[in-house]
Amino acid sequence: MVNAGAMSGSGNLMDFLDEPFPDVGTYEDFHTIDWLREKSRDTDRHRKITSKSKESLWEFIKSLLDAWSGWVVMLLIGLLAGTLAGVIDLAVDWMTDLKEGVCLSAFWYSHEQCCWTSNETTFEDRDKCPLWQKWSELLVNRSEGASAYILNYLMYILWALLFAFLAVSLVRVFAPYACGSGIPEIKTILSGFIIRGYLGKWTLLIKTVTLVLVVSSGLSLGKEGPLVHVACCCGNFFSSLFSKYSKNEGKRREVLSAAAAAGVSVAFGAPIGGVLFSLEEVSYYFPLKTLWRSFFAALVAAFTLRSINPFGNSRLVLFYVEYHTPWRRKTTRLGKYPVLEVIVVTAITAIIAYPNPYTRQSTSELISELFNDCGALESSQLCDYINDPNMTRPVDDIPDRPAGVGVYTAMWQLALALIFKIVVTIFTFGMKIPSGLFIPSMAVGAMAGRMVGIGVEQLAYHHHDWIIFRNWCRPGADCVTPGLYAMVGAAACLGGVTRMTVSLVVIMFELTGGLEYIVPLMAAAVTSKWVADAFGKEGIYEAHIHLNGYPFLDVKDEFTHRTLATDVMRPRRGEPPLSVLTQDSMTVEDVETLIKETDYNGFPVVVSRDSERLIGFAQRRELILAIKNARQRQEGIVSNSIMYFTEEPPELPANSPHPLKLRRILNLSPFTVTDHTPMETVVDIFRKLGLRQCLVTRSGRLLGIITKKDVLRHMAQMANQDPESIMFN
Amino acid sequence: MVNAGAMSGSGNLMDFLDEPFPDVGTYEDFHTIDWLREKSRDTDRHRKITSKSKESLWEFIKSLLDAWSGWVVMLLIGLLAGTLAGVIDLAVDWMTDLKEGVCLSAFWYSHEQCCWTSNETTFEDRDKCPLWQKWSELLVNRSEGASAYILNYLMYILWALLFAFLAVSLVRVFAPYACGSGIPEIKTILSGFIIRGYLGKWTLLIKTVTLVLVVSSGLSLGKEGPLVHVACCCGNFFSSLFSKYSKNEGKRREVLSAAAAAGVSVAFGAPIGGVLFSLEEVSYYFPLKTLWRSFFAALVAAFTLRSINPFGNSRLVLFYVEYHTPWRRKTTRLGKYPVLEVIVVTAITAIIAYPNPYTRQSTSELISELFNDCGALESSQLCDYINDPNMTRPVDDIPDRPAGVGVYTAMWQLALALIFKIVVTIFTFGMKIPSGLFIPSMAVGAMAGRMVGIGVEQLAYHHHDWIIFRNWCRPGADCVTPGLYAMVGAAACLGGVTRMTVSLVVIMFELTGGLEYIVPLMAAAVTSKWVADAFGKEGIYEAHIHLNGYPFLDVKDEFTHRTLATDVMRPRRGEPPLSVLTQDSMTVEDVETLIKETDYNGFPVVVSRDSERLIGFAQRRELILAIKNARQRQEGIVSNSIMYFTEEPPELPANSPHPLKLRRILNLSPFTVTDHTPMETVVDIFRKLGLRQCLVTRSGRLLGIITKKDVLRHMAQMANQDPESIMFN
Repeated sequence: MVNAGAMSGSGNLMDFLDEPFPDVGTYEDFHTIDWLREKSRDTDRHRKITSKSKESLWEFIKSLLDAWSGWVVMLLIGLLAGTLAGVIDLAVDWMTDLKEGVCLSAFWYSHEQCCWTSNETTFEDRDKCPLWQKWSELLVNRSEGASAYILNYLMYILWALLFAFLAVSLVRVFAPYACGSGIPEIKTILSGFIIRGYLGKWTLLIKTVTLVLVVSSGLSLGKEGPLVHVACCCGNFFSSLFSKYSKNEGKRREVLSAAAAAGVSVAFGAPIGGVLFSLEEVSYYFPLKTLWRSFFAALVAAFTLRSINPFGNSRLVLFYVEYHTPWRRKTTRLGKYPVLEVIVVTAITAIIAYPNPYTRQSTSELISELFNDCGALESSQLCDYINDPNMTRPVDDIPDRPAGVGVYTAMWQLALALIFKIVVTIFTFGMKIPSGLFIPSMAVGAMAGRMVGIGVEQLAYHHHDWIIFRNWCRPGADCVTPGLYAMVGAAACLGGVTRMTVSLVVIMFELTGGLEYIVPLMAAAVTSKWVADAFGKEGIYEAHIHLNGYPFLDVKDEFTHRTLATDVMRPRRGEPPLSVLTQDSMTVEDVETLIKETDYNGFPVVVSRDSERLIGFAQRRELILAIKNARQRQEGIVSNSIMYFTEEPPELPANSPHPLKLRRILNLSPFTVTDHTPMETVVDIFRKLGLRQCLVTRSGRLLGIITKKDVLRHMAQMANQDPESIMFN
Repeated sequence: MVNAGAMSGSGNLMDFLDEPFPDVGTYEDFHTIDWLREKSRDTDRHRKITSKSKESLWEFIKSLLDAWSGWVVMLLIGLLAGTLAGVIDLAVDWMTDLKEGVCLSAFWYSHEQCCWTSNETTFEDRDKCPLWQKWSELLVNRSEGASAYILNYLMYILWALLFAFLAVSLVRVFAPYACGSGIPEIKTILSGFIIRGYLGKWTLLIKTVTLVLVVSSGLSLGKEGPLVHVACCCGNFFSSLFSKYSKNEGKRREVLSAAAAAGVSVAFGAPIGGVLFSLEEVSYYFPLKTLWRSFFAALVAAFTLRSINPFGNSRLVLFYVEYHTPWRRKTTRLGKYPVLEVIVVTAITAIIAYPNPYTRQSTSELISELFNDCGALESSQLCDYINDPNMTRPVDDIPDRPAGVGVYTAMWQLALALIFKIVVTIFTFGMKIPSGLFIPSMAVGAMAGRMVGIGVEQLAYHHHDWIIFRNWCRPGADCVTPGLYAMVGAAACLGGVTRMTVSLVVIMFELTGGLEYIVPLMAAAVTSKWVADAFGKEGIYEAHIHLNGYPFLDVKDEFTHRTLATDVMRPRRGEPPLSVLTQDSMTVEDVETLIKETDYNGFPVVVSRDSERLIGFAQRRELILAIKNARQRQEGIVSNSIMYFTEEPPELPANSPHPLKLRRILNLSPFTVTDHTPMETVVDIFRKLGLRQCLVTRSGRLLGIITKKDVLRHMAQMANQDPESIMFN
């Protein structure tokens, strides 16, 4: 909005900004940016470069470089995000195995790598190779028996505690912003809020390192939400290298939207899902140009990760996902001692998790196992079915069979693991460490789904004459796939937590390949969204944003109340009148007093207090800087100098001091609505144009002001008064 | 905007609309809708239903039905669009074969169906079966020789002419809007323009029938663009069944956006691509709710089509796509005689196409053949390579081999077909028949790509020691896949024509399955977009919209000029002053004269001509209806009755006639900007809020008005003045 000065002739804002007042044109921490202004500033910059480009070849090349810098930034983000994700995967792999043992040939090998490089490993014995030594073997030279088990158990707990302690200390000391998943904050930042340092280099470094530590420690959390944060930090870092992005908060957010897409892309190996996730869940301002660039960044990131190939060639281990808790726990008594809290939760997690194979293994491995179908070569306990001795060894299409002992054992263990996972995730999430909720949510859903799946399978096998099975389930055919139930359960649980829709289905479909499963996945996503919405419209990110009180104007909330601008604007009835500036009758001192006594972000400028006819809007920040500047540099400016916002100085008595012209900081095109404008329209305008404030007039007279915070407060108020009215959207 | 009346207390617009004046609240043909007003009306309707739902169980059920009607409409659209696409595919299959012969067992069988049902067909001879008779066999009982060839040739031409004649006649007589692809018009309609009948039932019926005819006639056109039009007609039909959509032009457009996605989904078998296409290319207002519903509609449509299964099980024959010409031909001398034009072009196409196998077969078959890799069982001429006699019969991985005679013949025929296709498509497209451009564009690209691919393959085989081949192409390996070149060529050509980006890549990737080819496809899409943009920013749809002069405000065009609202608003300097109404001093006759003498869509209402302080805006249409209504029903309203827009009637002399209160039709919240507002911001506001007009003020005084057409005219003007400034965006 302030750009108007820049538009009107020669004395424009950009020149003013070139003067050595470093803070003009930037925003304060925890303030909201003005999207229209940022856009306008970018157009100005762009116009300058275009007109300069005709002057010389060098300027022309510079203008080309500027035009291409967007693509370069995307390429760099994709490369770095993909590399970091690959490094994290490799490190987690190694450190998770370190809890159980070490490789003698090279200590930096994970269990799998150790056995792969060994020549003595056969295919049947692929998990047992002499070079990989469990701690009990290494320390007391025993691999079996109670003492070995206890020693391994202790080492497992010790390593877990060490990793968790390191992580929470690093976060506490170096980068407090590195905790949590980061998605709610990124959503808020993308909507135009400033949180300095949230995407800084320290956060990037510490979050990457601690993410490895916490995932390796075996806590019930995932790395996918934090990966989005890491990718956004990369985006912020690279955009700071190009003045096009570093100096414009609006343009910077376009880069960050694309970086979020790249983050999801590497978290799930799902580039299209990443773009849709950024579009559907995270981003606020998402022009079509950003769609295309996000897609590019997401693809580069996915292919960088794929060429690092951290998982050998397993497709499903890309199943390593998570966001933010579905259970809302703002703080506990332990919350005041974050390090202790982490240690306690880690200890409990490690102690309970070790004995149960389904909680000991990493959550992504668990999900992968639950999703998998029981092929002929599958050695998992879940696939311990009783084979028909008359049948030749099957390869592809295995008919339904009765469950063996292993399956029943697995069912009990899964049930216990499910309860444990639900409880421990509630406590884990919200601790001061990087943590996501995707993986735990999916694991909970997948466990429940697999159990239901096995149940239905056995029912169908033993009772294939029941009506529900009769038509589609011949005996001896493979008619129930428990793995698919697990997948659908995971999607449903995730959908309930995050309320993702299209992006959820696309991500699941990219993970599993093929459109065949899209119908059950979609049914699950729709159902879980409807059921969850019945308990409350907010997804986990929105809930978190609300808990933290960020000024976030959600695009998805519909405002359907009959209130008018006049009901929301300040001053209310009975409040003192609006603080305004007059165009040519206030002194420097008057204004300084006004600034001191109020904390408004800006002041409307009117012709006179009587007529109340609006001529523009002046930002507090720029007013302060302009007065400071004038007092230091301009001769004759004293406390009783008249300030004027008109083109020509007002006629003053002969001996009055030199007046101060401030037209250049006046926004001549403030946004106005009439007092009769429905709030519905006002909310729409705030959302779509990204306003910070809007002035309210009636028949050309200034009546009041509505800020973004007023709008948010009003929306919250109306929602509390009448929660039902939102239900039917 | 007009909704403001509806907001202020009891005398609201909705009541007024309930009175028996059928046209209030609707729009005239070829006018633009007011998005904010439509949205507001929907909120009102929704509020009414919500408050009524508490009154009785029946009202509650009605409110639930209303809330679900959106999903029901989506389901119906998906089912109908999928069914129509399946029927079209089956009919085209049969009628295309009818040009060559007929099935003796049942005349409604296509060649393939005929031979499939016959028991005498073996796998080797699958194309030759006794029940399928060519016309020469049937009529003169000869299958070989010159006379048989000539007879078949003639029959082919005759059938083609018959189909084309039928199609053009049907379009001419019953549904002139059924011609072309329809995408540009749908884009315009979705942006808020009214074209009555464009999506009507007759258009639906005639477009479906004629689409079958023109595709069967062998003209160089595709059915995919028209399928989008057909799906949108379905959407319009179903939305007319639910008052939620039929009475609200804004809500109706949400349904149409989803219908467009369903259309692309069935055209390509690509549901995700369809949603992205609708988002990226077609839609204007695309809230997240529409994203989710579009996805649902697109999936239902794709699965309906799949269960009809028109192509047996061939995946690639879903390759049946097209949009609108890349070559711009507005009119020719023949264009005045549309039927003759179609006949001539069809005759030429049929005569030239028949002798060349690559032009005789249907374009989708051609594309499918060009995309396919040469497997061991492939009988195509393109796969006539010289096999190494030492090699055992390969199954999967066939190494590069020298080309045989068939491949060289195929290269010549492809080259001729390529030239023919380019020329004939230019003439075909733009005729008065349903026609799309996707398939011809893809065919051109695929032919060129396959030829390049075969060239590179042979170079690599004969010169595998060249530097460019040495590192990645060992002798005896399969290192060049000509089919991939064809695919990339098709994507590049299509991208150049339509300037699609993400949706293009996703559609191609959904068609071919698997993410492996996404990198070459993306490189092709990016390159073709950049090259094409160097010649001009407009894609084929935008060009078409411009040619037709539709008032379409493109979201993608960036406006970067330094003009202000004052430069664009009317009245300009020297023009007569703005036609305004005063709030309480004009008579009915004054207003009627003003309405008669001007053709403006509405008039600003000011306090008085002297103060020029704006109080609201009155629509022409509603003014006319209100006066007519008052004259008929209200007693004492005569020509010199004073009209007033204030709350209370003005004080009038004792013997003056009864005054007419018009506050209920006054929009009390007209959109205003100041004269100093940069046009960049104004364009943004028009785009994002979907305005029809905006008033310009300075210090609360009304200065002028800017309409959507003024904005478009100004943008065109500025673009012509300085075309380069757009280049660097």
